[in-house]
Amino acid sequence: MKKIKAQKLKGFMDVAPHEMRQKAAMMEKIRQVAELFGFGILSTPTLEYSETLLGVGGETDKQVFRFRDNGDRDVCLRFDLTLPLARYIAENYGKVPLPAKCLQMGNVFRAEKPQKGRYREFTQCDLDIVGVDSMDADVEVLVFVTQILRALQVGEFVVRVGNRSILNALQQQLLPGLDDAGWQSVLIAVDKLDKIGEDAVAQLIADEVQVSREDAARFVAAITDANALEQLLGKSAELDAQIQRFTQTCQVVNQSAGEDVVKVDLSIARGLGYYTGMVFETNLLQHLSLGSVCSGGRYNGLVSRFLRDEVPCVGLSVGLSRLQAALSEGQSAQSVAPIYLFRAEEVPLAQAVSLAAALRAEGLGVDLSIKKRKLAQHFKHADKAGFAQVIYLAAAEDIRCKQMSSGEEASYASAAALLQDLVSPPAQP
Amino acid sequence: MKKIKAQKLKGFMDVAPHEMRQKAAMMEKIRQVAELFGFGILSTPTLEYSETLLGVGGETDKQVFRFRDNGDRDVCLRFDLTLPLARYIAENYGKVPLPAKCLQMGNVFRAEKPQKGRYREFTQCDLDIVGVDSMDADVEVLVFVTQILRALQVGEFVVRVGNRSILNALQQQLLPGLDDAGWQSVLIAVDKLDKIGEDAVAQLIADEVQVSREDAARFVAAITDANALEQLLGKSAELDAQIQRFTQTCQVVNQSAGEDVVKVDLSIARGLGYYTGMVFETNLLQHLSLGSVCSGGRYNGLVSRFLRDEVPCVGLSVGLSRLQAALSEGQSAQSVAPIYLFRAEEVPLAQAVSLAAALRAEGLGVDLSIKKRKLAQHFKHADKAGFAQVIYLAAAEDIRCKQMSSGEEASYASAAALLQDLVSPPAQP
Repeated sequence: MKKIKAQKLKGFMDVAPHEMRQKAAMMEKIRQVAELFGFGILSTPTLEYSETLLGVGGETDKQVFRFRDNGDRDVCLRFDLTLPLARYIAENYGKVPLPAKCLQMGNVFRAEKPQKGRYREFTQCDLDIVGVDSMDADVEVLVFVTQILRALQVGEFVVRVGNRSILNALQQQLLPGLDDAGWQSVLIAVDKLDKIGEDAVAQLIADEVQVSREDAARFVAAITDANALEQLLGKSAELDAQIQRFTQTCQVVNQSAGEDVVKVDLSIARGLGYYTGMVFETNLLQHLSLGSVCSGGRYNGLVSRFLRDEVPCVGLSVGLSRLQAALSEGQSAQSVAPIYLFRAEEVPLAQAVSLAAALRAEGLGVDLSIKKRKLAQHFKHADKAGFAQVIYLAAAEDIRCKQMSSGEEASYASAAALLQDLVSPPAQP
Repeated sequence: MKKIKAQKLKGFMDVAPHEMRQKAAMMEKIRQVAELFGFGILSTPTLEYSETLLGVGGETDKQVFRFRDNGDRDVCLRFDLTLPLARYIAENYGKVPLPAKCLQMGNVFRAEKPQKGRYREFTQCDLDIVGVDSMDADVEVLVFVTQILRALQVGEFVVRVGNRSILNALQQQLLPGLDDAGWQSVLIAVDKLDKIGEDAVAQLIADEVQVSREDAARFVAAITDANALEQLLGKSAELDAQIQRFTQTCQVVNQSAGEDVVKVDLSIARGLGYYTGMVFETNLLQHLSLGSVCSGGRYNGLVSRFLRDEVPCVGLSVGLSRLQAALSEGQSAQSVAPIYLFRAEEVPLAQAVSLAAALRAEGLGVDLSIKKRKLAQHFKHADKAGFAQVIYLAAAEDIRCKQMSSGEEASYASAAALLQDLVSPPAQP
């Protein structure tokens, strides 16, 4: 029979156990912390009608897996979790109690050119507060960011917070007369501040839209000025209220954190068209090159794709793969279960199975050997696979236990004796 | 602007937080128990080349979401996790150490007619031991089934174990001369024993393939006979060896479980073409109508779609949605976090945020109110959403805590006093 070539699709990935284990543990930690904040998990379909997802702007329309299904429906694989959430809220409007706090963890798809670290399918993790435009909700989102990063133990970090409507006000003042497309180009240029610096961004703005190099430079200077907010005060009551809410938001978060984890930075723009208020990015001080590991903001208009009513939202995305990169630095290979258990051929299988069950009942992970190997081969396998301990049933009443790191070996006459040694707490001095 | 109709695709589902929470907890429990057994999580892509998935037989080829991607590749959404596993093993043959123990949890897609409880996208959970054909591996799989069902606390259960090669032997003896298609029809008929009974199955076999009603009835009687195995002994050395391994497998599992959780039942056929040895199904005694909640078996030929070498496998699928149906019976609505926290308008937000942080640091889930409501509305909301406790910051030094079930209310002068009351263990008598 002709063999089929075993190959995954270009741009897609298999994630092997040693990586998936860390990813799953990270996702479970996020779920637990989210639960402490009252975020409930929501799951929506991987496939949606194309009109649900397309037409928001940006590159996404070109990067989508779109096809006609068996019922000739025009469908897409979702490319983010935000539009499906908006669809869910709109479809169940009046039924889902609002405000709602939603956690979503799921795979999304982008038919873009694969690059190092960028795949056509990857997991997103979003948290959103839907149905209220309050400072309290903005604060809750930022507090969650600080708490989840502490819980994941990724070291020191800073959350840089900007505000799209304040940025708009600055632009109207300093770069008046731009249309929407022009303003979008300015935002995209501003997003590059970290990478290319102020001068280059000013030049980029002058190149892309109809403003002078001087005006562009004044604008860039204003948004990177630590006192920008004060200078804007007193121009209009609406703007004053926005500045006050924004300043207070950051103050409350820092006060509650007991340190300045949140920093005002008006140059945070976030490229996506749909943000309308607070926007933020998060950097790990020991891993600055990873870029933002946790980003988000307020988007009050997205659900109105579907509804007459406005349903204001504020949310964040946790950058799972970037965080995993930070966490896995310098880690060495480790077996899934710490103990490898095998038996001499003359020892009955039932005895090994019972011993494994007893160890597992104490919470000790056991990989019971399922393949006949010679003694030396068993140890070679255990060493290569990174097991911490090897337990060897040499005879019915001769159980050996070897610590792989030290080579230390002990022998026991019964499973009970071994168990007592392995699971009892260390003796008090 | 014209509004887009908010609608999910037919046959797909949104899973709301109260259901997802239970599902996520169940999946995490499975992951933990699997880890105790040394199963590592593997994740493969949602999309595969069509030739990887199609042509295994059965209904699947017709029920697949298949399309040409942007690069004109012929691709399918995966309809199970077994074929992607086989592809992964074959693609990495010689690199992945074998035997390997893999846990997979992921969504699969079937473009079939939606029915009650059957969706076009659903989550599968598979555990497989790849690369060894040993009784030890068969035992490990059955032991895992008993342990995971105990850990999930779904009540009493029975694992019914059959064997495809012994069934083949019985068929060759009692219904000789059938071709592959005929044999497949017999297996499909046998699968219906539970639902339609022995007589109807015999009739079905006689209708579908070229055998007499009497021969069909003799065959059905043989596979449902408790002594079938003994009667088969002594016919051939190979069959004797198979019967001995099969009998011992069940004995070792029961011995280790301390009770007869595993029952020999040769009528377990499992429709899928690819099983080659042991096959099993699992029923919950308090929920027989759910059907099998955990099924699987040995399939030694599947990887040879891709490879010249045989890579024997044995595995199981955990029926997540059926188990969830069993677990959620009679449950009432519950909020994600047990505590609802709100403040009077004159209390600063920072105080509420700090109190929430302190409670969460003790592991207590807090849904901090993010919407201005009147006092009565706050309590009405808390009652409807199923919160256990409501904490109300009436003034900076007046914190009230109400137990929603009893209506009991206590008042505290400081966060510290409240915390002590909520988190300290009950006083010793």
